[in-house]
Amino acid sequence: MLRFRFMAEAKLQVIPLGGLGEFGMNCLALRYGDDIIVIDAGMMFPDAELMGVDSVIPEFTYLTDNREHVRALILTHGHEDHIGAVPFLLSELDIPVYGTAFTLALVERRLDEHEMLENVNLNVVECGQKVELGCFTVEFIQVTHSILQAAAVAITTPIGVVMHTGDFKVDPTPTDNLLFDLHTFADYGKRGVLLLLSDSTNADRPGYTESERAVYPRLDEIFTRADNRIVVSCFSSSIHRIQQLLDLAKVHGRKVAFLGRSMSEVTEIAHNLGLLHIPDDTLLRPQDIQSMRRDRVCVIVSGTQGEPMSAFSRVAVDNHKNLSVESGDTVVLSSRIIPGNEKAIFRTLNHFARRNVNLIYGSMNPPVHVSGHASAEELKLVLNLVRPKYFMPIHGEYRQMATHAKHAQHMHYSGLEQTFVLETGETLEIDKRGARKGEQVPVGRVCIDSGTIDEFVDDIVIRDRRHLAEDGFVLPIIAINKHSGLPETLPEIVTRGFISDEDGSTLMQNARQVVAKTLESSSAEERGDWGVMQEKIRADLKRFLTKATSRRPLIMPVILEV
Amino acid sequence: MLRFRFMAEAKLQVIPLGGLGEFGMNCLALRYGDDIIVIDAGMMFPDAELMGVDSVIPEFTYLTDNREHVRALILTHGHEDHIGAVPFLLSELDIPVYGTAFTLALVERRLDEHEMLENVNLNVVECGQKVELGCFTVEFIQVTHSILQAAAVAITTPIGVVMHTGDFKVDPTPTDNLLFDLHTFADYGKRGVLLLLSDSTNADRPGYTESERAVYPRLDEIFTRADNRIVVSCFSSSIHRIQQLLDLAKVHGRKVAFLGRSMSEVTEIAHNLGLLHIPDDTLLRPQDIQSMRRDRVCVIVSGTQGEPMSAFSRVAVDNHKNLSVESGDTVVLSSRIIPGNEKAIFRTLNHFARRNVNLIYGSMNPPVHVSGHASAEELKLVLNLVRPKYFMPIHGEYRQMATHAKHAQHMHYSGLEQTFVLETGETLEIDKRGARKGEQVPVGRVCIDSGTIDEFVDDIVIRDRRHLAEDGFVLPIIAINKHSGLPETLPEIVTRGFISDEDGSTLMQNARQVVAKTLESSSAEERGDWGVMQEKIRADLKRFLTKATSRRPLIMPVILEV
Repeated sequence: MLRFRFMAEAKLQVIPLGGLGEFGMNCLALRYGDDIIVIDAGMMFPDAELMGVDSVIPEFTYLTDNREHVRALILTHGHEDHIGAVPFLLSELDIPVYGTAFTLALVERRLDEHEMLENVNLNVVECGQKVELGCFTVEFIQVTHSILQAAAVAITTPIGVVMHTGDFKVDPTPTDNLLFDLHTFADYGKRGVLLLLSDSTNADRPGYTESERAVYPRLDEIFTRADNRIVVSCFSSSIHRIQQLLDLAKVHGRKVAFLGRSMSEVTEIAHNLGLLHIPDDTLLRPQDIQSMRRDRVCVIVSGTQGEPMSAFSRVAVDNHKNLSVESGDTVVLSSRIIPGNEKAIFRTLNHFARRNVNLIYGSMNPPVHVSGHASAEELKLVLNLVRPKYFMPIHGEYRQMATHAKHAQHMHYSGLEQTFVLETGETLEIDKRGARKGEQVPVGRVCIDSGTIDEFVDDIVIRDRRHLAEDGFVLPIIAINKHSGLPETLPEIVTRGFISDEDGSTLMQNARQVVAKTLESSSAEERGDWGVMQEKIRADLKRFLTKATSRRPLIMPVILEV
Repeated sequence: MLRFRFMAEAKLQVIPLGGLGEFGMNCLALRYGDDIIVIDAGMMFPDAELMGVDSVIPEFTYLTDNREHVRALILTHGHEDHIGAVPFLLSELDIPVYGTAFTLALVERRLDEHEMLENVNLNVVECGQKVELGCFTVEFIQVTHSILQAAAVAITTPIGVVMHTGDFKVDPTPTDNLLFDLHTFADYGKRGVLLLLSDSTNADRPGYTESERAVYPRLDEIFTRADNRIVVSCFSSSIHRIQQLLDLAKVHGRKVAFLGRSMSEVTEIAHNLGLLHIPDDTLLRPQDIQSMRRDRVCVIVSGTQGEPMSAFSRVAVDNHKNLSVESGDTVVLSSRIIPGNEKAIFRTLNHFARRNVNLIYGSMNPPVHVSGHASAEELKLVLNLVRPKYFMPIHGEYRQMATHAKHAQHMHYSGLEQTFVLETGETLEIDKRGARKGEQVPVGRVCIDSGTIDEFVDDIVIRDRRHLAEDGFVLPIIAINKHSGLPETLPEIVTRGFISDEDGSTLMQNARQVVAKTLESSSAEERGDWGVMQEKIRADLKRFLTKATSRRPLIMPVILEV
């Protein structure tokens, strides 16, 4: 038996495929011998640098290369940065998926959009339940977070226990009264944990994150003071927040309407699962908002990040069929501002301010929004409960993971052997002799343009778009007589996004001469090779334009044989 | 006399040309009869939506259209969003400029860059001093702000006093001990102020902004704890902050080096004016940083906003010739994060985190950065001192100005007749009968690509770049025989940033057929008119590509006569 274990042992590999050293697109594989499990498959909202791309998912090459070994996908919770890539992963790999009921209901919604609901193997797990997957035993553990039914997982492997927190905070008073399961964390800690993987999102915030219930006094005050409509925007998955709004509406005698596709869909999912309690006679249909007395209405709207087509943005510019806010209405943004979205969000708020509403957003005390992620002291609490031998921060940019690692080191508990700050693509190997960085695995970002013929956008296409966005393009077009090999006319130059027609006309005349001169000064042999000629023209024209304008447009010579 | 005043009276016009309802590019004109004065001429840092543009300044059409009436440019302080457009304004208008010594020294630096130092008329004014400009008398009043020598101005006009705060906070303990001149504000208020124009930047922050001195305990702690180098990035114009760092360096026995062009230039300007005290034996040349003992160095670096070519960003990626940070060094970001710059700043910080430095940034108590703008209670203090008849918030996005207006209304002091929330281009008219919105004036944003032949970037060029950034371009190229009017070959299609070559080859083959069909199905008359043909081809190709891909590339048919 001992001999068998020794032989089978090999090593445990921790393989982050996304979410380490970057914000979003969380995905991590654990491998022991021939068994691989995947934890989460999330997407990332692209920043402006990814020109025109709708979303970004991890590259799954490592998993498809090892497809026969992948046993399952484990989901910790239903936020998009943890489940958004599930349809793409399941289109590549036919593997079972495990998660809590609410998480899988949100996954079903995404699969439905991709017409993939058939032939998928979704398995609802309750916290406290264990699942056997190859050589791994996975226990789901209840944690608190801004979404319902978030879980951590404890994975018992042949060489020890790996705990993965998912996303969490330690909320002592969650609105659903389902507390963070400190006891199970303590039990595992007492028995010995080989490796802890823990959420670093708020590692650089001191103290404790406030409880979800901390927003109640602020929201109550808003309901008390509002003379007219109350319009609140929050994440559609923030069922805790929505429940509080429903309860307050009941107390203050207001009806509640949900606006926006994701808001109505996700609240319906939560309601059908019995996770959102809608008091009797509270629900108002969107089409009835305008006809209700303004002091009897609360509208909950999706679109917190200023997405241009969202309900919240459309209401802001008075372009929503069901709601037209008026002077004296109260508009509340009960949500965080995801970095990169500031301008879009503030633009939306400015539109509301122009309608002379009471606008409530930003930091205040009591808060109108609280984070769902653990601050430094909560992270240390979990480290203290688990006291892992090895510690590896996950979910965060490098600065946040580095800070999280420092927190662990500063605790100086006996038993901590080493902390590892890895980024996506780097791996950790653990065996009997210890832990160390292993080989790199192939990782990357895959860009998705939703709704297009080919959803995957090539890197080179994005690079071109970025180039075009900076300085536009200049296309010299040369018609060459296929018999004589000589140009038929003076080269044409077509340009957009580079310089205005007015300013550019003389410049372009000169540029045409530059191209003509390049053609003239080339030998017959060169002129016979289009590739050479294109490169010569590009180089000469680039030199000329850079000198004249300091700009570097995309230059792309076109040679037409006529 | 009375009759004369009545005749001359006409009306006072307040004409914001920038900075109201937008962040940056502050510029406001006051007109009474034939006299116009301009207060500030700032620039705006462009956001990502202004593709590739370096900076943005206000359109000065109103001023150039009325050039014979413009008496002077008044500058409240030397931040770029108040002086950045001065070279552009002075290249259009030959007018005298008034400001405090430090403000004008910073203006000189910008004029020098544009080789415009000759033939400009710069007039240093001290606070308390009055300047006569046409029918206006302008008094400079000392205020506190994050930059040295910031001033408010009280402008006595024929029909009453207009007070313009510039940017300010009410710092009871500024590091230069030059207090906010409450008394002069009170005096004007007592005698009666017609209109107050006041900085709204922080109108949505409750309470008081902390004093500049509040950062001292945090910086002191950093100096006390650091075992190795201390690297601090702050705005080069934050001489208050830099003075505190110099004082602390002296106390803790460290030498100070300045890195970055703007940091060395601005500290030199302040030092030459006697406004920055550099203790003896404290200054270290950049080239000596690496050879100094690491615990004896403090480096102050420009580039707080993650600008790619700034010294701070270059140090972050270990690409600066004078400084290579090492594990254990301390790196401090002592600055605000301007909305829109989050990603660039965090990227810089992540690079530092990878070098295993102690990274200090963000909100903490005591703070490592404090704002230079007044919060709600300070704004109310100024409103209470001045008690204007009319109030008009300036400097801020709409939501901030709207909140500022509400603060004034909530004070319910007797004498306030009306508040006006205007945006750039809207005007306010005041005469004996009262105040009201006046006519719109032409305003706009002028985009600047610095260092290029023609610094002004056309709107249409930016629109094209934005379009190109989203979906790239598709150029159908048709060679038409100039004798027969018939196409010489199958149309060529050139595309970039739209779809990858691999995915696109079939699509492009089909697109060529679409264009060929358009050509075939056109009458000889249509084919004779290039404009018509281009439009027909564009329309047909757009329909085809949108249907096939849901994308909308820039389509620009090119017809070559051969």
